[in-house]
Amino acid sequence: MPGDHSSKQYDMDLETIRSKVLQMGGLVESHFNDAMASFRTGDVAQAEQVIKSDENVNRLEVTLDDACSHLIVKRQPAANDLRTVMATLKVITDIERIGDEATKIARISKTLHERGTVSVLNHYESVRIMATNTANLLHDALDAFARLDEKQAARLIAQDAEIDHEFGAVLRTMITFMMEDPRTISAALDTLWVAKAIERIGDHAKNIAEYVIYVVEGKDIRHTDYVYTKLNSSV
Amino acid sequence: MPGDHSSKQYDMDLETIRSKVLQMGGLVESHFNDAMASFRTGDVAQAEQVIKSDENVNRLEVTLDDACSHLIVKRQPAANDLRTVMATLKVITDIERIGDEATKIARISKTLHERGTVSVLNHYESVRIMATNTANLLHDALDAFARLDEKQAARLIAQDAEIDHEFGAVLRTMITFMMEDPRTISAALDTLWVAKAIERIGDHAKNIAEYVIYVVEGKDIRHTDYVYTKLNSSV
Repeated sequence: MPGDHSSKQYDMDLETIRSKVLQMGGLVESHFNDAMASFRTGDVAQAEQVIKSDENVNRLEVTLDDACSHLIVKRQPAANDLRTVMATLKVITDIERIGDEATKIARISKTLHERGTVSVLNHYESVRIMATNTANLLHDALDAFARLDEKQAARLIAQDAEIDHEFGAVLRTMITFMMEDPRTISAALDTLWVAKAIERIGDHAKNIAEYVIYVVEGKDIRHTDYVYTKLNSSV
Repeated sequence: MPGDHSSKQYDMDLETIRSKVLQMGGLVESHFNDAMASFRTGDVAQAEQVIKSDENVNRLEVTLDDACSHLIVKRQPAANDLRTVMATLKVITDIERIGDEATKIARISKTLHERGTVSVLNHYESVRIMATNTANLLHDALDAFARLDEKQAARLIAQDAEIDHEFGAVLRTMITFMMEDPRTISAALDTLWVAKAIERIGDHAKNIAEYVIYVVEGKDIRHTDYVYTKLNSSV
């Protein structure tokens, strides 16, 4: 049965791509963690390493986009299978953008520590909770993508709102610092840019979770109240 | 010739999608302009209109993503044609994110003017140049996509660097204001968030230009020095 054979080939090709997407995900995850570590400790070499290694993320994006195109042309998947490839393409874009945000954090960390800003601010401490929760969210989103676990994905989408909320808390803290001592303004802004980058990483992780649900349920839940309905109905 | 027929059908379907993508582009363009107008004049109703109409952008994203999937399944395009569909999918994502940034500007404008912040800052004036240049960049990027004009696209990619540069100027101005009068801190931060949103719109417009070159030349120029080589060689 050639049809069956072709479909098995399709499954194998897709699995190869998916496992490489997960490798790419693991790479940006470590970039994010390393960038935050460098922000905390002032290790400039570690920040530079992240900035340099973003090239690898970019190369993976181009390669994996190509692999998805080849898969479509070669295997001509049916509507249902195509949905998975489409979602994978979108996940690749989000992972690449997470890499960009990690690089931004590394750059700020580098500038901040090279400048040797003496500050009353403990920069890392002010974003610590946000950073930890976002790292967990990203890890769990990639995990949900690996296992195509739609229930975990639905939970994660709700968690992203908490990160946005934590960003508001960081913002208020920074405003207080700046008002009390205008000499902290530059440094406080740097911390705010880091907080903003973390918030974006949370948004991209949420997008990944949404694509997991799209693949599993064949339902496009972007821009809907789907998750809230889902979470409420499972209580 | 069924093959020929099918390819003509493919061309027609693709043109329908492309023209709808351009409509979507026109919509976010007007959202961006309206959001900036509301930021300038304090017209809260106009800001609310932008926020509400973002739903239309979101709906278009889902519909057009679907249309691209159907096109692939129905017409099974060859590698060369598939490239155009893939690039169109990416352009749709960038347009939707431009809509998100325009909505952010509208929200900030609304808060700022509802709060009736009395400030020494002329908020709009400080981002005026950046906003004008970005609106032009976006318009020209959509135009390059409409006409598949790779030369115009290459020029635009270089222009995005100027917008990033202008963002730096806004940042320095805001820091000066905040240092001189800490009571302006909240309002200056609002202006900075607007500047950040404008900068992102510039990034997305640049992405669109990159996809135009990808379609025309069949070359993935993301993350390369392609444009600079191209521009230099044409001098």
